[in-house]
Amino acid sequence: MSFAFEIEATRERARKGRLLTAHGAVQTPVFMPVGTQATVKGVPQDVLEELGVEILLGNTYHLYLRPGVEQIRKLGGLHRFMSWPRAILTDSGGFQVFSLSDLRKVTEDGVTFRSHLDGSAHFLGPEQAMEAQIGLGADVIMAFDECTEYPADAERARSSMEMTLRWAERSKQYFEEHNGEVPWGHQPLRLRSGQALAVSRQEDLVRVVADVHSRPKPAELRSAGRAWRPAPTQAAPTQALFGIVQGGMDHALRKESAERTIEIGFDGYAIGGLSVGEPRGLTREIVEGTIQHLPADKPRYLMGVGTPEEIVEYANLGIDMMDCVLPTRAARHGLLFTSEGKVSIKQARYAGDEGSLDPNCACRVCQRYSRAYLRHLYAANEVLAQVLNTIHNLSFYLDTMRRVRHSI
Amino acid sequence: MSFAFEIEATRERARKGRLLTAHGAVQTPVFMPVGTQATVKGVPQDVLEELGVEILLGNTYHLYLRPGVEQIRKLGGLHRFMSWPRAILTDSGGFQVFSLSDLRKVTEDGVTFRSHLDGSAHFLGPEQAMEAQIGLGADVIMAFDECTEYPADAERARSSMEMTLRWAERSKQYFEEHNGEVPWGHQPLRLRSGQALAVSRQEDLVRVVADVHSRPKPAELRSAGRAWRPAPTQAAPTQALFGIVQGGMDHALRKESAERTIEIGFDGYAIGGLSVGEPRGLTREIVEGTIQHLPADKPRYLMGVGTPEEIVEYANLGIDMMDCVLPTRAARHGLLFTSEGKVSIKQARYAGDEGSLDPNCACRVCQRYSRAYLRHLYAANEVLAQVLNTIHNLSFYLDTMRRVRHSI
Repeated sequence: MSFAFEIEATRERARKGRLLTAHGAVQTPVFMPVGTQATVKGVPQDVLEELGVEILLGNTYHLYLRPGVEQIRKLGGLHRFMSWPRAILTDSGGFQVFSLSDLRKVTEDGVTFRSHLDGSAHFLGPEQAMEAQIGLGADVIMAFDECTEYPADAERARSSMEMTLRWAERSKQYFEEHNGEVPWGHQPLRLRSGQALAVSRQEDLVRVVADVHSRPKPAELRSAGRAWRPAPTQAAPTQALFGIVQGGMDHALRKESAERTIEIGFDGYAIGGLSVGEPRGLTREIVEGTIQHLPADKPRYLMGVGTPEEIVEYANLGIDMMDCVLPTRAARHGLLFTSEGKVSIKQARYAGDEGSLDPNCACRVCQRYSRAYLRHLYAANEVLAQVLNTIHNLSFYLDTMRRVRHSI
Repeated sequence: MSFAFEIEATRERARKGRLLTAHGAVQTPVFMPVGTQATVKGVPQDVLEELGVEILLGNTYHLYLRPGVEQIRKLGGLHRFMSWPRAILTDSGGFQVFSLSDLRKVTEDGVTFRSHLDGSAHFLGPEQAMEAQIGLGADVIMAFDECTEYPADAERARSSMEMTLRWAERSKQYFEEHNGEVPWGHQPLRLRSGQALAVSRQEDLVRVVADVHSRPKPAELRSAGRAWRPAPTQAAPTQALFGIVQGGMDHALRKESAERTIEIGFDGYAIGGLSVGEPRGLTREIVEGTIQHLPADKPRYLMGVGTPEEIVEYANLGIDMMDCVLPTRAARHGLLFTSEGKVSIKQARYAGDEGSLDPNCACRVCQRYSRAYLRHLYAANEVLAQVLNTIHNLSFYLDTMRRVRHSI
């Protein structure tokens, strides 16, 4: 086992725990910043570390197209490529194929699509999505699924769910046959500069690696007069594979999807197909209904959610992992989240405002710069606006989740 | 005196020294990064501090148009506005009026021009340029000059030089009457976060402020039976004003411009009107010729120069201060300066290059990221490309000047 999930405390339905990955521990519930193209737009990796980011999300679709999976694999995987020593999760690429590419054609095999960059033709099915994610080498990878559109009628929701289940099966099979090919299996888990992982993380890592290596070694067995056989699982730390529950907005289908996905068996379970245009009340209802059918001892990942209020709400319902482009994308549009509500920093009212963006925030932006300066940077179309705004919004999201964890 | 220049060592024509400003000491020869709109594009202020930047350049033309001088003055001046506790130099705005604005009309009074942002009409003459620079509150400000175009015939070069001299006179007069209005006169020299200036800088500052206050205090004089009179100069630390030598590419005019500018009397002397399209050999010739006519005990500032080779060359000729957009602008175009020569990071040859950008560079970019990653960021049009490239190029320029200083 190179991946484990420990629950340390619960409060009503909420759980506080840790994912133990080959690239360190991740405290949950966790919000995962999105680093689409192997970068959280505008933020250097050391600043992400300083913010306390323990896991990043990378988008397989984007990385598959540019710079290409093979390129990243040859360079030792995504961690090494982007110099990020902590955990990474990649999506399967399916969602972006549906939302970004042209001329997609879905068959039982998978999806044929054209690149949004250059119009070139590509094919992505469960095996290709697994191959790509193994090549990228994230700690947590996702089964290939079809994100059912909203609205969808009963027949369409079922047939889409059935295909996701068949794809889940194929994803798992490919993963089991190939997960030993992960590029970081034999790479040192250190930065080129020799900077070691933080001590607490290293302890976690040692523990995970110790688990892997705790089976008796050949010499020990031989001296004990017993035969040594290779263990059935990989000896080196490897990736975790999560399945995705679909089923549209239908409770019965969601239940069935959850049960049959669990039957296939994954290291964790995601709830997909939400935040696709449905009303927020319905999202919550489906999340609440679906969680009941997920195993208590595995991590639960709600994909593509949400606002600061929503991530608190879902963590309190028992969700362990979330990701969303909202904090980073909103930052680029000058929309900032603060303890006093949203601030649209482009507004003229902030031009002479000497105050901190958020007086209750300890991030390096709020500690150093005024609203007047941030407003000027935005109005002057300066790149530093994007950099500082993103740092603050991420800090706000991470602080929010820290508070949720402390409350459990 | 709130501004002083000390020469600590010389080697042939080169000088090693320190500018002592109200915002800390600046080791010379110095390269000043350009922070046009109150930001060095893409680089947070703490990173500039970490790089060892001791003085930044701000552009009066840009800040005058946006957010406006009055806005910055009300917010305590440029240091406080951008949260930069170290020294700042502003140009007079003249050069940008000539290079960026439309419909400019030059008269004896000054220049009428239209904003490149919104077409609005403005007027900038020596008095307005001084008023703007006093309002911004940089440590070193520049007399309003006309940058003579290249090529210019003898008559044009002389008449332009004569006007610059008359404008220098008016600049100085306005400055002497108004420099007490600098907005940081009574502002604490600390960041809002309470972060103090680095100790060595604070010592310098204490020393400068001690100079200001070393005149006997009223009580001391009274107890000695003498009358106390306010000193003729400002008691609070204030700005330094530099004059600018023009004269085109004519040695005799340059000599005359230098002598007559010195006669007016400034805290330092700049060589302007170079890097305007003339061959590099001619630039060097004019710099070398002009330096001879500048006083040895005042700082010499060569404006708008240059490549890494040029900044070394001019420092060795006895120049103390330089500024140029080259390292920052080139970075944004993927052109990086390294100890092994220029690297155009966009080239496909770097796509699989695991090496550091510059193996001899200790900057945070070279310590952490590979050429392959930097190439990917650039190719994917990611903002982090600009951020990291700029940090490296500035580091390279600052290291270059550090080596020059050590060699003197």
